[in-house]
Amino acid sequence: MTTLVADERDGTAELRDVDAWWRAANYLSVGQIYLMDNPLLTEPLRPEHIKPRLIGHWGTVPGVTLTYAHLNRVIRRTGQRMLFVLGPGHGAAALNAAAWLEGTYSEVHPEVTRDLAGMRELFRQFSFPGGVPSHASPHLPGSIHEGGELGYSLAHATGAALDNPDLVVACVIGDGEAETGALAASWHAPSFLNPGTDGTVLPILHLNGYKIANPTLLSRIPRTDLDALLTGHGWEPMYVEGSDPDEVHARYATVLDEAMERIQEIRDFARLGIGPSKPYLPLIVLRTPKGWTGPAAVDGVPIEGTFRAHQVPLAAVRENAEHRALLEQWLRSYRPEELFDDRGRPVDRISDQNPDGPCMSADPAAHGHTTVGLRLPRPSDYTVGFAEPGTVRAESTRVLGGFLRDALVANPHNLLFFSPDEHTSNRLDAILEVTGRRWRAERYDSDDRLSPDGRVFEVLSEHLCQGWLEGYLLTGRHGVFTTYEAFAHVVDSMVVQHAKWLYMATQFPWRSPIPSLNYLISSHVWRQDHNGASHQDPGFIDHVLSKRPEVSRVYLPPDANCLVHVFEHCLRSRGMVNVVVAGKQPALQYLDDQAARAHCEHGLGVWNWASTDLRGGTEVVLACAGDVPTQETLAAAALLRELVPNLAVRVVNVVDLARLFPPDRHPHGISDAAYSRVFTDAPVIFAFHGYPWLIHRIAYRRPHHDRLHVHGFVDNGTTTTPFDMCALNGIDRFQLAVAAVEQVPRLVDRLDELRSELLARLDAARSYALRVGDDPPEISEWSWPNSTAPRHE
Amino acid sequence: MTTLVADERDGTAELRDVDAWWRAANYLSVGQIYLMDNPLLTEPLRPEHIKPRLIGHWGTVPGVTLTYAHLNRVIRRTGQRMLFVLGPGHGAAALNAAAWLEGTYSEVHPEVTRDLAGMRELFRQFSFPGGVPSHASPHLPGSIHEGGELGYSLAHATGAALDNPDLVVACVIGDGEAETGALAASWHAPSFLNPGTDGTVLPILHLNGYKIANPTLLSRIPRTDLDALLTGHGWEPMYVEGSDPDEVHARYATVLDEAMERIQEIRDFARLGIGPSKPYLPLIVLRTPKGWTGPAAVDGVPIEGTFRAHQVPLAAVRENAEHRALLEQWLRSYRPEELFDDRGRPVDRISDQNPDGPCMSADPAAHGHTTVGLRLPRPSDYTVGFAEPGTVRAESTRVLGGFLRDALVANPHNLLFFSPDEHTSNRLDAILEVTGRRWRAERYDSDDRLSPDGRVFEVLSEHLCQGWLEGYLLTGRHGVFTTYEAFAHVVDSMVVQHAKWLYMATQFPWRSPIPSLNYLISSHVWRQDHNGASHQDPGFIDHVLSKRPEVSRVYLPPDANCLVHVFEHCLRSRGMVNVVVAGKQPALQYLDDQAARAHCEHGLGVWNWASTDLRGGTEVVLACAGDVPTQETLAAAALLRELVPNLAVRVVNVVDLARLFPPDRHPHGISDAAYSRVFTDAPVIFAFHGYPWLIHRIAYRRPHHDRLHVHGFVDNGTTTTPFDMCALNGIDRFQLAVAAVEQVPRLVDRLDELRSELLARLDAARSYALRVGDDPPEISEWSWPNSTAPRHE
Repeated sequence: MTTLVADERDGTAELRDVDAWWRAANYLSVGQIYLMDNPLLTEPLRPEHIKPRLIGHWGTVPGVTLTYAHLNRVIRRTGQRMLFVLGPGHGAAALNAAAWLEGTYSEVHPEVTRDLAGMRELFRQFSFPGGVPSHASPHLPGSIHEGGELGYSLAHATGAALDNPDLVVACVIGDGEAETGALAASWHAPSFLNPGTDGTVLPILHLNGYKIANPTLLSRIPRTDLDALLTGHGWEPMYVEGSDPDEVHARYATVLDEAMERIQEIRDFARLGIGPSKPYLPLIVLRTPKGWTGPAAVDGVPIEGTFRAHQVPLAAVRENAEHRALLEQWLRSYRPEELFDDRGRPVDRISDQNPDGPCMSADPAAHGHTTVGLRLPRPSDYTVGFAEPGTVRAESTRVLGGFLRDALVANPHNLLFFSPDEHTSNRLDAILEVTGRRWRAERYDSDDRLSPDGRVFEVLSEHLCQGWLEGYLLTGRHGVFTTYEAFAHVVDSMVVQHAKWLYMATQFPWRSPIPSLNYLISSHVWRQDHNGASHQDPGFIDHVLSKRPEVSRVYLPPDANCLVHVFEHCLRSRGMVNVVVAGKQPALQYLDDQAARAHCEHGLGVWNWASTDLRGGTEVVLACAGDVPTQETLAAAALLRELVPNLAVRVVNVVDLARLFPPDRHPHGISDAAYSRVFTDAPVIFAFHGYPWLIHRIAYRRPHHDRLHVHGFVDNGTTTTPFDMCALNGIDRFQLAVAAVEQVPRLVDRLDELRSELLARLDAARSYALRVGDDPPEISEWSWPNSTAPRHE
Repeated sequence: MTTLVADERDGTAELRDVDAWWRAANYLSVGQIYLMDNPLLTEPLRPEHIKPRLIGHWGTVPGVTLTYAHLNRVIRRTGQRMLFVLGPGHGAAALNAAAWLEGTYSEVHPEVTRDLAGMRELFRQFSFPGGVPSHASPHLPGSIHEGGELGYSLAHATGAALDNPDLVVACVIGDGEAETGALAASWHAPSFLNPGTDGTVLPILHLNGYKIANPTLLSRIPRTDLDALLTGHGWEPMYVEGSDPDEVHARYATVLDEAMERIQEIRDFARLGIGPSKPYLPLIVLRTPKGWTGPAAVDGVPIEGTFRAHQVPLAAVRENAEHRALLEQWLRSYRPEELFDDRGRPVDRISDQNPDGPCMSADPAAHGHTTVGLRLPRPSDYTVGFAEPGTVRAESTRVLGGFLRDALVANPHNLLFFSPDEHTSNRLDAILEVTGRRWRAERYDSDDRLSPDGRVFEVLSEHLCQGWLEGYLLTGRHGVFTTYEAFAHVVDSMVVQHAKWLYMATQFPWRSPIPSLNYLISSHVWRQDHNGASHQDPGFIDHVLSKRPEVSRVYLPPDANCLVHVFEHCLRSRGMVNVVVAGKQPALQYLDDQAARAHCEHGLGVWNWASTDLRGGTEVVLACAGDVPTQETLAAAALLRELVPNLAVRVVNVVDLARLFPPDRHPHGISDAAYSRVFTDAPVIFAFHGYPWLIHRIAYRRPHHDRLHVHGFVDNGTTTTPFDMCALNGIDRFQLAVAAVEQVPRLVDRLDELRSELLARLDAARSYALRVGDDPPEISEWSWPNSTAPRHE
């Protein structure tokens, strides 16, 4: 072993202490993977001390514990507030150990005391039934990132740094994770981070060289290429490489000190207004062996430094005495007797290394404690006024834009907007009246509202929009993700992980609920007629509603006023995934401010003003959810009034889709009795925004389900007109009216006549479109055949 | 304008011809966006010549047509076979124009003749109801890539190049698209492409500077950073930049000639075995103005070279005479009278530029014409033998591995395997007996079966696995994508796009069906107990079944023998998305080779050997789909035989989920009569692999749907044991047995007793797991309480 080298600033003694802390954390990590008893090896290891199922990932641990130890050294020296984001999957053992050494683990999990009994419990519970997972899940204090599905660490870290000017977010990125698309895109953060008003992301790219069975790309491209790749994205790479602990300690300390000085310099310059717009940001490349300090070889096969160190280096410890002896030797190599006293408590040398102030495992921002509610304007100040339903047109998202603009003005430091280049396309321009689009790269005079400190983030990556927003929310701030409906599927897997996090987090009372993840889904399936089939997919709401009902919400406001009220509710809510689907095209308005507010509060309701069954005897119910289906349903109701004047039709609109669930399936579900009061026992023709089966999946246990006929998108998409999209999928006014009369027994004699009449009108509209290239005037503007609805006030 | 500069190889005259072709393609593109009549401007433009809805994207067109013109020049000079992949979205106008000029468009769409009438039709149909979309969709000859959702061009191009040693795939990458995660990861292609046996990908990064409303990142980072970023990924960037057509023509010609020489050199060296393992591959950076040659300014606002050129530069041409005059001026600026004769046919100078051999718009590989069916081994040679059901264990995926290994041996040049580092984890090791993992970056002795020409691709990016495989399939070859079930959601949006492509392609008989996209989904929800909630999500099958029934298939083989038979079927199929879900853990086997084959052919069936209703009078049906639910169902049947010996129980297993659809909803759907013969009119307790509502969504119109009780995954996930995962979600043997007896009226008096007994056994198993850390021995190995099933042969 070479002699310990330390520069003039870091005493050898300090680094020896850091090494001791590292050994303690490694010891505790190995213990978690293997032991359910005899935690301090006070007796020789016996089979019954070993867990029956060995689950855990050793490979990444030593690099993570090393990093944590060195960051703590920096925190002690500088008082810098830091968060720690752990990218490599299954690395929680390392952070459980760190939080236990810092005392935080025992604070939030009192049964895991910082003594021998607690150490035993810390070990036993890891990847154990009823225990904690092998990822940095919500159980872990200080964590905002699970790392179950890989690729989002750097985006989360970037989001956490936004508007946290005094924070450094240290982000360990696994070299396996670095192969994912999301992570590859995340390297662009320096083009967006504002060193004046944001905190700093300090990526630590951990090249331990291997994934499960393969080497990693970034560890096997030439060093010059790696350097170029990182520099090209705007980073200044600093290298810590080696396999000799003393040398690596000395180098890591030096490099971290340099990085911190550079970070301070960048901040100082930016805050004096004299720095470059986009300085190169420090990034650490840590190249150490996979499974470092673990068994070098087992059964003659090399382990340390190879892919075989990825999970459990010694696989048969319970059965195989030789493996067991190797494990004991491995554990004892950390010299636990120097690290813990007889009662299992960390010795002073270890606990003295805990930072004085809040440590990384106890930062209140990681536990939702720093959340400040939004000061929101009154929705009623933005709603559209009109005398009668269906007489005024508005673009729903444009109306919402005014509300969001003023929300931003009232909350200048904890509200952000994210979109893949679509705020203007989705007609939220009003927001850009009071802020710009964040851009730290080069700007030209001809650009439109780019700004180095803008609060709108536009990058053509749904992964980055979602990841940045998640990081921002997970540290207690608020935001909105606006995207095209079809392409929301790009983040399907991310919303799964976030929803799981939200649900699991509710089980830990020391975590406060964080602001909800709010999606504004526009450019939706019914108005992507011009963009064609590739842009037509309403399945994101199906996907979100497959997640736990405690955290998933879907809203389909029928008009602008409802949209504003729904969105205000979403921005006030906590701990949810809220999906709001709304159109951006001019569309008729139905509910005035007060009616919209009441309707959204109820989540669904009968629209008496459009119904003709007020004296009872409902013959058919026309139900709808979504703006275009609502339009077509009201038009169908008007057609029926024209063709069958005495038909008792009820119009029902659903805003909050979860209302249709039975109450034991979703907290928003209404009772069967309430359901029957709305939907009666008459046949229901339901025009739905999405796939028809979503309604059946929600309502299949409801009374009279066999009389529920849902029309929705059945993937009949193409490049056509708005009306033709409806016609192709059977949710147009004419086909809805046909479906309705087919359900009314007393009309059986008139059925052929009515059907012929309605289908003739349908054909006329479609053939006009195919000939002229646009919908007929009476339909293209989404008019309503007779704009004056029946009134029954 | 500067004088035309050409190097000694390219005569000025040749480049003038190229310029003429470029002008012709640009003229035809503008015509598609605007005109529905008067295609050659034989009379002054009038409003009725203009489409009522102006839809299209001009911004990207001139760079695409320029590139196409110059590639054709190279093809004429070198005879190099090329494919063209168009990354930028909505750029189809450019390629429609090119294919029309080459005559291919008229061959496949005979109504669009290469004359004046055809030109009119070419214009009219673009983004027109009943016409063609604005993306390079299946309507477009030569295209294998739609570009509706952005980010997959380079991955598709890479997949197309694999095993096509003589091909060059030119891939235009939009600088907007380049911000996506999938594209960012795709830059790593040089670490995988084998210049000896693969074709070459020639990326053309088109920096036109803007997205819809924003500049693009790669156009605004310093040139040195861009160069570093690309070099760091293994490319050798060559720059073509400018806004003077003559200069750009000269430069593009020179650079392309250099690139082609470099490509030939790399190929020659690789094929002589003397080149580097991973040579830097030529890449062209094309920096030209957005909307180049379009209107410089409209209404005093700059258009050309700004984001405002993205879509339709002149928005009000029908209404506004000034705009109309500008359009006419713009169109005439291409001097159509020099390019087309009076009858609308391209003049010789233009058509002489078509390559002599197959041109890019007519490559048979782009139309599925080069597909060669796989030579597959007999599945029966791989199935597991046993005397009685439930007496032998096997790992399903390991058994399949043997079959796939020999399939690879029999098809060494047109079958590839893709996975995010999971072939070994998913126990498909046998494949690696006969090939290696593809790796062109540095290799070490300690690596496991890396190979520069391996036929297994492992990279920790589901996007790359899917994108490469799609490119391979779209050019007529075969492959398998193996991935963890939960993380299949990463490619949710990609499978939407691919399924839409497959369905649309069926509408064009000149496209032959391509091999199916086969997913092997393993490490599934029920055996991710150890990895915790983040790894538990069975929703990918819901997602795929939301796509067109003509192209979507889901198979849930209950054991290894069924898996082999199902997979053989999938590998033989064409034009489908096949999702096969199968476990990798040791599990009991039920069907011998012949029975498995018959069961898979039927797709579902009664398992008489496990049923006790053979004399009729079925009292309850235990149905199941998926390997773990089948295990628990059979165990529940055994429990019922023990506790209620005279109960008439029928066991039904479903392999092909689509069989449950009504026949008008899916081509695999069986009739109601057939459904009733299988499921009887008794209550059905259905143990399902996925979310229970998927079964309800499929079967809600089936007879006796109100007696169908589905148990499945309800997102009760955590870190626990395999059995506890079942218990938490109510699909364990005990809860299934309870559900069954609850449905049998004659057992009402014994219900409390039976329920107590069953739930006591459940509690015992669960508390053992929580105490010991593993399932009780009689359950942990997925045993079956009495392994000898009833036999009724």
